[in-house]
Amino acid sequence: MNWKPDRTLSISLANQIVHWITEQILNGHWPNGTKLPSQRQLALSLGVNRSTLQEAIDELKADGILCSKIGSSTFVSNDSWNILVKQKQPNWQKYIETSIHKANYQTIQLINEFEQDESIIRLSTGELSPSLLPTEKIQHSLQHLKLDGKAIGYSSPQGSLALRQALVHYLKKRNIETTVGNICIVSGGLQALQLIAVGLLEPGSTVLQEEYSYLNSVHPFQSYGMNLHSISSSTEQMVIQKKLRGQNIYYAIPTLHNPTGAIWSQQRKEQFYEQCLAANLPIIEDDVYFELAFEKLSPPLKAIDSAGQVVYLGSVSKTLSPGLRIGWVVAPTPVIKRIADIKMQMDYGSSAFSQEIVTHWLTNGLYEEHIITLKSELQKRALYMEKLLIQHFSDIASWEKSKGGFYIWLKFHHPIVTSELFYKLLKQKILINPGYIYEPKDAFHIRLSYAYASEEELRVGLICLQKTVSEKTKP
Amino acid sequence: MNWKPDRTLSISLANQIVHWITEQILNGHWPNGTKLPSQRQLALSLGVNRSTLQEAIDELKADGILCSKIGSSTFVSNDSWNILVKQKQPNWQKYIETSIHKANYQTIQLINEFEQDESIIRLSTGELSPSLLPTEKIQHSLQHLKLDGKAIGYSSPQGSLALRQALVHYLKKRNIETTVGNICIVSGGLQALQLIAVGLLEPGSTVLQEEYSYLNSVHPFQSYGMNLHSISSSTEQMVIQKKLRGQNIYYAIPTLHNPTGAIWSQQRKEQFYEQCLAANLPIIEDDVYFELAFEKLSPPLKAIDSAGQVVYLGSVSKTLSPGLRIGWVVAPTPVIKRIADIKMQMDYGSSAFSQEIVTHWLTNGLYEEHIITLKSELQKRALYMEKLLIQHFSDIASWEKSKGGFYIWLKFHHPIVTSELFYKLLKQKILINPGYIYEPKDAFHIRLSYAYASEEELRVGLICLQKTVSEKTKP
Repeated sequence: MNWKPDRTLSISLANQIVHWITEQILNGHWPNGTKLPSQRQLALSLGVNRSTLQEAIDELKADGILCSKIGSSTFVSNDSWNILVKQKQPNWQKYIETSIHKANYQTIQLINEFEQDESIIRLSTGELSPSLLPTEKIQHSLQHLKLDGKAIGYSSPQGSLALRQALVHYLKKRNIETTVGNICIVSGGLQALQLIAVGLLEPGSTVLQEEYSYLNSVHPFQSYGMNLHSISSSTEQMVIQKKLRGQNIYYAIPTLHNPTGAIWSQQRKEQFYEQCLAANLPIIEDDVYFELAFEKLSPPLKAIDSAGQVVYLGSVSKTLSPGLRIGWVVAPTPVIKRIADIKMQMDYGSSAFSQEIVTHWLTNGLYEEHIITLKSELQKRALYMEKLLIQHFSDIASWEKSKGGFYIWLKFHHPIVTSELFYKLLKQKILINPGYIYEPKDAFHIRLSYAYASEEELRVGLICLQKTVSEKTKP
Repeated sequence: MNWKPDRTLSISLANQIVHWITEQILNGHWPNGTKLPSQRQLALSLGVNRSTLQEAIDELKADGILCSKIGSSTFVSNDSWNILVKQKQPNWQKYIETSIHKANYQTIQLINEFEQDESIIRLSTGELSPSLLPTEKIQHSLQHLKLDGKAIGYSSPQGSLALRQALVHYLKKRNIETTVGNICIVSGGLQALQLIAVGLLEPGSTVLQEEYSYLNSVHPFQSYGMNLHSISSSTEQMVIQKKLRGQNIYYAIPTLHNPTGAIWSQQRKEQFYEQCLAANLPIIEDDVYFELAFEKLSPPLKAIDSAGQVVYLGSVSKTLSPGLRIGWVVAPTPVIKRIADIKMQMDYGSSAFSQEIVTHWLTNGLYEEHIITLKSELQKRALYMEKLLIQHFSDIASWEKSKGGFYIWLKFHHPIVTSELFYKLLKQKILINPGYIYEPKDAFHIRLSYAYASEEELRVGLICLQKTVSEKTKP
């Protein structure tokens, strides 16, 4: 939403909104049946009070241009085009509602939207601050790319051979022995999950996951009829041994878990792997944060995988630049062939330019060099955030010292992390990732990130968070 | 498949193949249940006779390592891992077979695979020759990109604002008036179709299309339960007026159709648009070839779309570089918001680097300049191919003079374009796109492309095609 009413005009704000909405309908941008954003959201976007917005909406309702349905949702009425233009129009809203893929949760949509707003303090963003990205070095490295016409044509199904060769070498650092034939380049970890959902899993099958899970904040599996089943580590063994019917899979982040930051011990990994093998339950190992561990790690599950049981995911989004959109899947040949085949049908491969850049960085030592600097910067930021937490949150929350990555999983003593808190903070231009996007029933946690906001923003944001929470818990 | 048996060794070729297959199984790359490529395909890849391959396979079958099921397919047996290692293993093949997305047609998989082989003559490739890509100029332009940390972070849901601004301006050339809010950047036209399939259409709905259609060679719709319904232009009006039940859509390429190369007249466009509007049938207008027309075009459907009826697709894959993976969708606001929301869930946006490059080319006149050169090169190639066709095919086939783009839709007088011909040519290192990938029942057509192969390759390839066809039709 780019438009905002102009407070310097003599026309009332409500009237300006009426005009603007009518215009959206007339130029075909808001067709019949379009669902408007919630009034709370719309008022926020337009920068007006809800009463002003209500006035505008009431007027348009009286004219039959807008209408309300069950609940508080407002729609462009199915007669609006008829009233205004005397013509029929496709009902896109109906198309959207009956289609397959789930919409992002409203909270996630808001987060995606408000992350574009420069004036917002982002306390939870799972992304490196622009100041931590090696932008100048990447810019400089562009001059050293040796493009040829072949390389910038359509990609081979599994992606750039040079990049896969570089990855074979790079993955040895994690004790993973693989071949170029067992790697498929993808556009980031999320795309890998989409490809697994439609290329490996059966509708009705189950994706097992840890208690709090990144998967709950996205819909690659649910949209295609797979069930998510969260299990706590205490009941894990039991659930895995039950051998649920169908072709199921376990999704795990054993290293620097999102959102909790946890790292599995070597023993836990081995036990878990053996359990899954015995139960014939394959594993997706999401390992996009491993480069960012502050201390030495034990090898990943994939390193102990002799039976082709693990589909391993990596990416440069959390280390080099999310804008590259480059990740990789390592798996047995039929799985890789299948993923590559679907990838070719989905988008004909990832950006050749991005692949060239990543290859260059991996093969010239630039990547390794950058990771060292980056880790030390992140560690400084983690310490700073922990200092602030000790100062302001010791009485009301608990947390564990960060072991790497971006996150601190802040747990409040009381269940106060509600959508009300989320909106209250948003009004104060503070954006958080509440625990309930990782586990719908949760009201205790916030996923804090020290990777994005500046020290000053972290200070201001956390103090404001503490105040807002304290006001809320006052009797 | 990178491995080939070594003819200089004293071990027999069949034995080498036995060893190689056992190795694939032992290192977990070909797990239990893995379906092997067809024997024809495998023999071709390994560069051996089918009898040699058969010998190897028979030996492995005798040991219980491989097995055959119905038809001629060969599988890694479900006992293989047990026989070799005495351990259980996940059955990935079962996962693949019960999952949602359709596999690419075998012919398309082969085309994707053999397009990577430098020694193949590609008579049909829908891609610019590396020599026609402005590789050096792109390389040079990389130095002029002004990257900043924001730009190479996660993208906004609809993609780079600067690129969308450039597109608003660029689309005016085609008489399309739109706004940055009505554009979503995607990773090429094929991804747009995937997003439309899962974000707008209901399982069971129908995608109407022309008689021969690019859509038949890919599966974005069929994989999610939509039906394709091909209609000839003579029965079109009738079918549209029938108002099929459900939320359906019409997929059309009115300008430089793939595979036929046809261009709709202004009158045909207007009639078609009015018919669809009256029937409440929205339209996907795929317009990725329009820049490459040799003569002036009438405006697209989107330019006459006042009711928000048309979802318009464009791309730079056919003009600047397929490796960029950049395309765009222009549509009413709710459609764009929906597509952007799903895109964020699928891959978190397209490569920021690719978006920066396209923005730079669009805003600096580089793109327009390049298109002029490119068109004149393509026109030269089209004339050359037409000369060859007149020389060698006048007696056995007919075609229309190319109006632009890449293709000539060659129609043989007799139904000889079968999969047998496809394989016969492949053995001679010649790759064609047979008509049956655009219309399963077709046996008359080949989609020729003058965009990829060199003049010399076109000459050699077409003469070989003519000879192979003539041998075939001899009594």
